[in-house]
Amino acid sequence: MAYYIGVDVGGTNIKSGIIDDSGNIINESSIPTGADRPQDVVLQDILQSVRELIASSKIDIHEIKSAGVGTPGMIDYDTGSVIYNNNLGWKNFHIAEKMTQALGISTTLENDADAAALGEVIAGSAKGAKSAMIVTLGTGVGVGIVIDNKIFRGSEFGHMVILKNGRPCKCGRKGCWESYASATGLIVSTFEEVNANPESILAKTAELEGKITGRTVFDAADRGCEVAKKVIDDYITNLSCGLSNLINGMNPEIISLGGGVANQGEKLLVPLREKVMSEIYEGLRHKASKIVACTLGYKAGLIGAAMASKNALNN
Amino acid sequence: MAYYIGVDVGGTNIKSGIIDDSGNIINESSIPTGADRPQDVVLQDILQSVRELIASSKIDIHEIKSAGVGTPGMIDYDTGSVIYNNNLGWKNFHIAEKMTQALGISTTLENDADAAALGEVIAGSAKGAKSAMIVTLGTGVGVGIVIDNKIFRGSEFGHMVILKNGRPCKCGRKGCWESYASATGLIVSTFEEVNANPESILAKTAELEGKITGRTVFDAADRGCEVAKKVIDDYITNLSCGLSNLINGMNPEIISLGGGVANQGEKLLVPLREKVMSEIYEGLRHKASKIVACTLGYKAGLIGAAMASKNALNN
Repeated sequence: MAYYIGVDVGGTNIKSGIIDDSGNIINESSIPTGADRPQDVVLQDILQSVRELIASSKIDIHEIKSAGVGTPGMIDYDTGSVIYNNNLGWKNFHIAEKMTQALGISTTLENDADAAALGEVIAGSAKGAKSAMIVTLGTGVGVGIVIDNKIFRGSEFGHMVILKNGRPCKCGRKGCWESYASATGLIVSTFEEVNANPESILAKTAELEGKITGRTVFDAADRGCEVAKKVIDDYITNLSCGLSNLINGMNPEIISLGGGVANQGEKLLVPLREKVMSEIYEGLRHKASKIVACTLGYKAGLIGAAMASKNALNN
Repeated sequence: MAYYIGVDVGGTNIKSGIIDDSGNIINESSIPTGADRPQDVVLQDILQSVRELIASSKIDIHEIKSAGVGTPGMIDYDTGSVIYNNNLGWKNFHIAEKMTQALGISTTLENDADAAALGEVIAGSAKGAKSAMIVTLGTGVGVGIVIDNKIFRGSEFGHMVILKNGRPCKCGRKGCWESYASATGLIVSTFEEVNANPESILAKTAELEGKITGRTVFDAADRGCEVAKKVIDDYITNLSCGLSNLINGMNPEIISLGGGVANQGEKLLVPLREKVMSEIYEGLRHKASKIVACTLGYKAGLIGAAMASKNALNN
């Protein structure tokens, strides 16, 4: 059998896994990142964690064909290094080369969101799709594109303007999709409506919960709040606008939504699909992207990083 | 040597060419389309034209490996048929199959804009690019995407909303990029400003030229018209908005602009590049898409259709 190591580096935890040829996780482990330490010290922890994982898996090391690491930040794919990441404090970190040397296993580096997108295509919500987009509704809007099981690297479609001169975005533009369709965007809209409607169920729900999250507005809508329903409707309209742009432009077989907001499941997906279908180019309607929710959670990143390293072996 | 036939079906003329392995046109011809006739009669003309082309080229028919046809309209790629095209009056036209049978040469069908995009990548403005987008500023905004010399079929990124609830688009949405950045969009904006400023040099230029075209506003700006300069500035801002969206999302190596408006060349490109550079995601600026003008004109469609048929042979 052939196996592949997948490592997903997060701000809080670093997860590692041994993945088989079909994208199944055979064994996995998690260690705290300790991002306040120098990058080479963190690397030692990763190496030890991977070695322990291999040992406990009772797999012959020669059966492990490659390793893949997924990290946030700006990546130099030619050298397999993290040019810069603010949260981890990493800079010019040649992690792929260092892991290759230390483990004796050929190691590649991917952006964590791109790796997760490949994971969903190999083993999750978009399994078997010839083309897929994984859209993560979190702090921002992440878009991972996978075509023919190959990552189309570095997409920042979250920073696609859908409303010229609209809400300011941290990227410097105004009216980016992400400033409306991210969980952050939803929280901003919720906050605005709480302030504008202090007597609403929405405002009372926010007070009860002690803070405004991406869930607050859905909780208030469940209690029958019309203000909340309007916020959700506007949110879905904006989410639909960007998704319709992407379907018109690329019409991937599957679009999988991930991130906190996607946990609303069919409550979000049913009206969203309806809006998208009314908006996209007429000639596409009979064969438009299927819109679903991601299914793998954090496992997508492990599987995807491992499978990306496998792809690199074959190229 | 290996050669390939390329056919480009337009509303007015049908052009055919014999293309060599490197994408050079060896010989070409043009016949009137006569689109008012039944599709199978038009096909007979195409077949005769191709046969004459082969005969006059003194090429052994066995050296011709495949043929590719580019047509407008909705295409069924599985069967190589035109499902529907309004301008040509074509419906369920299995043109690829019929040409394959009649010529004894394996024939494939592509959308004409997609074929032209491949042509520019093989032999024109985007030659050698690993990824390219050919953006045609005509009646609409056409976007042809080519990745690793392979057409990413059927993109309609012209129908990407950049201004929610903006100018109505014929696709049914409001604020599509195409409704601002097409030649038609430019003409609409020119018309609006001519009406709003009847004493402007722009209005006088329009009167002088007898009609408003995509050139009118550039002619007036050359005469120092401030109203015209503002229309051009707004046009470039809108063009830049959509291009920046595409660069953020896909960052192709090269973006080539075609269509009438692109004939303005560096007069358009210099301020456009500046705007795009100020707008795109910061991390992309050092490696952002090069923006150039298409160089092949109608030849792109011939070369691309032929080379797409060559690609099909190898898959």
